[in-house]
Amino acid sequence: MSRSHNFSPGPAVLPEAVLRQTQEALWELNGCGQGLLETSHRGAAFADVMERATGRLRRLLRLSDDQEVLFLHGGARTQFYQIPMNLLRGGRATYLETGTWSRQAAEEARRYGTVDVGFSSADSRYDRVPEQGAWGPLPKGTTYLHYTSNNTVAGTEYAYVPDVEGASLMCDMSSNLLSRQVDGSRFDLLYAGAQKNLGPAGVTMVVLRKGLLERCDTNLPMMCRYDVHVKKGSMYNTPCTFGIYVIERVCAWLEELGGLDVIDARNQAQADLIYGVMDASDFWQGRAAKRSRSRMNATFSTGDAALDTACVAAATAEGLLGLKGHSSMGGLRASMYNAQNDEAVQALASFMKHFEATHG
Amino acid sequence: MSRSHNFSPGPAVLPEAVLRQTQEALWELNGCGQGLLETSHRGAAFADVMERATGRLRRLLRLSDDQEVLFLHGGARTQFYQIPMNLLRGGRATYLETGTWSRQAAEEARRYGTVDVGFSSADSRYDRVPEQGAWGPLPKGTTYLHYTSNNTVAGTEYAYVPDVEGASLMCDMSSNLLSRQVDGSRFDLLYAGAQKNLGPAGVTMVVLRKGLLERCDTNLPMMCRYDVHVKKGSMYNTPCTFGIYVIERVCAWLEELGGLDVIDARNQAQADLIYGVMDASDFWQGRAAKRSRSRMNATFSTGDAALDTACVAAATAEGLLGLKGHSSMGGLRASMYNAQNDEAVQALASFMKHFEATHG
Repeated sequence: MSRSHNFSPGPAVLPEAVLRQTQEALWELNGCGQGLLETSHRGAAFADVMERATGRLRRLLRLSDDQEVLFLHGGARTQFYQIPMNLLRGGRATYLETGTWSRQAAEEARRYGTVDVGFSSADSRYDRVPEQGAWGPLPKGTTYLHYTSNNTVAGTEYAYVPDVEGASLMCDMSSNLLSRQVDGSRFDLLYAGAQKNLGPAGVTMVVLRKGLLERCDTNLPMMCRYDVHVKKGSMYNTPCTFGIYVIERVCAWLEELGGLDVIDARNQAQADLIYGVMDASDFWQGRAAKRSRSRMNATFSTGDAALDTACVAAATAEGLLGLKGHSSMGGLRASMYNAQNDEAVQALASFMKHFEATHG
Repeated sequence: MSRSHNFSPGPAVLPEAVLRQTQEALWELNGCGQGLLETSHRGAAFADVMERATGRLRRLLRLSDDQEVLFLHGGARTQFYQIPMNLLRGGRATYLETGTWSRQAAEEARRYGTVDVGFSSADSRYDRVPEQGAWGPLPKGTTYLHYTSNNTVAGTEYAYVPDVEGASLMCDMSSNLLSRQVDGSRFDLLYAGAQKNLGPAGVTMVVLRKGLLERCDTNLPMMCRYDVHVKKGSMYNTPCTFGIYVIERVCAWLEELGGLDVIDARNQAQADLIYGVMDASDFWQGRAAKRSRSRMNATFSTGDAALDTACVAAATAEGLLGLKGHSSMGGLRASMYNAQNDEAVQALASFMKHFEATHG
């Protein structure tokens, strides 16, 4: 068997050029005489990787000088508690509840203060994100507003950055980071588990504004303290060096491709193709409200659970992998992160049309 | 440049056969049509990796049925707080202080209860570990005794497992796990960051006795709860799949080599060679008390800081990398974890003799 078309929701497809470079680095990292997994995180070879990774992310996200880039352990879920543990401290915060992940982030925050749910689409099975400003004026004393910019399970996405006044803006950008032009300098804290658009599972990028550090609780376990990680340049302990290397290579691939404008157009075209098949059909039913559709995760169904299952099996048999919907949602889900290639998406579109023709 | 002799203290040298297998898996994992970094942690291909990794560790560590194996994020330092956060809960615990890591583990524990220092070699710059039982009877009500079985910075190691009565036994085994025969069933909790003997940085193995789970605080952030990770089979969130794959391959390499008896003898022979050069010389000064010498990290000095620096530079020029001692200790350190090869150690022994002959 060879590499199939990969629609996994994450860990997800990566650029093949990056895989080839990573294979070489495993044996020897940039001529340093040691393999990527075997060289000290404090040595010159890895310091160079770290510096380039940070620089590329700063450029791509258009960060300002008052923002820090960290590479931490633990996945986005660790940020669910690390943010309120450091910054809520008995105060209040607004969470926009648009799916599984944002709901669980809010649940963790409740341990550390008051959570106001500024918006929830739970009643419609998270089929939509709010319109800009739908959360209204934030309650007095709100520390921050937290949202999830793309919802992998339901297949919805914000096409805008929330306008927030008088509070910090925080975002879990795990599943659409670097997939479109976003002004990263607007965020006081944004984070992303790497395993969608950035690299492998096991490393999380955190961007935070330096001013927040003064508000962080310093009476916490060292590994939980943002100020410690900033002071130590993400090397308070041994970071996930492998993951940081892959992130650097993915960002290099993105910059060489032409940057976010190019990937933005490509992601839009791929999404248009799949949603186009749905919209031209009475057979395929999209899960998400049209204006909230995710370009990263298209969720859909035949409307018949047994037929959905048969459809996933038929797709798998044709080398289209990872299309099963999340267990809480059912149906199908096609994940099309940055590294998804046009050939795979075209193959999926053809498959969908053919499946409809033979089962519709 | 090609691969040099690698004496890095961690991340550290890995078996070349494992690197070759990992290169292949990056492109496609065991014929599943997806690369190792790109396949779902919940899919069949990775489930197989996880099951084999767990099985191999259970065999190598001789675990009993009442012990669980977890793969968590965050490095050993996360365990420094996760253990007392879950299990100390205002009670008391004894920590044996034999170096930087055990001291910092105790510092984190003080947030959650009373710490009794059962032994400390701080006054002699951590040049030794205690004799068996030196900590005396544990204070009444002691929850657990915690120790660090090998101290990478000072270069000391316990050649025995502490006898503990009436309290749980907990061990940070990051830097000598699987380097010798140890009856893993004696430990109520043992943990190891992977980047010494197991694999890459970014994943931590935790073994814990099921009975402990009933005593864990359940009012903690989900990612901090051992019971959650046990219930979800280390998949409460996306684990560091890459790291787990490499651990599985390293354990396979170890089993194919003949298991712990074979690696034990090899590690002893390598350590004997380096300590033999020191002991036959008035020029080289070993850092550690002889009975406490680590087989994983040999620390030594010429007794002259400038000459030590020149020695590290000369070694580097000859392709012997990673010999600089920890910044807190100075001097030199030769790390010889399981994957260290005899050729490298022989080259180091020759270099040491030659350096003495030309600088002694």
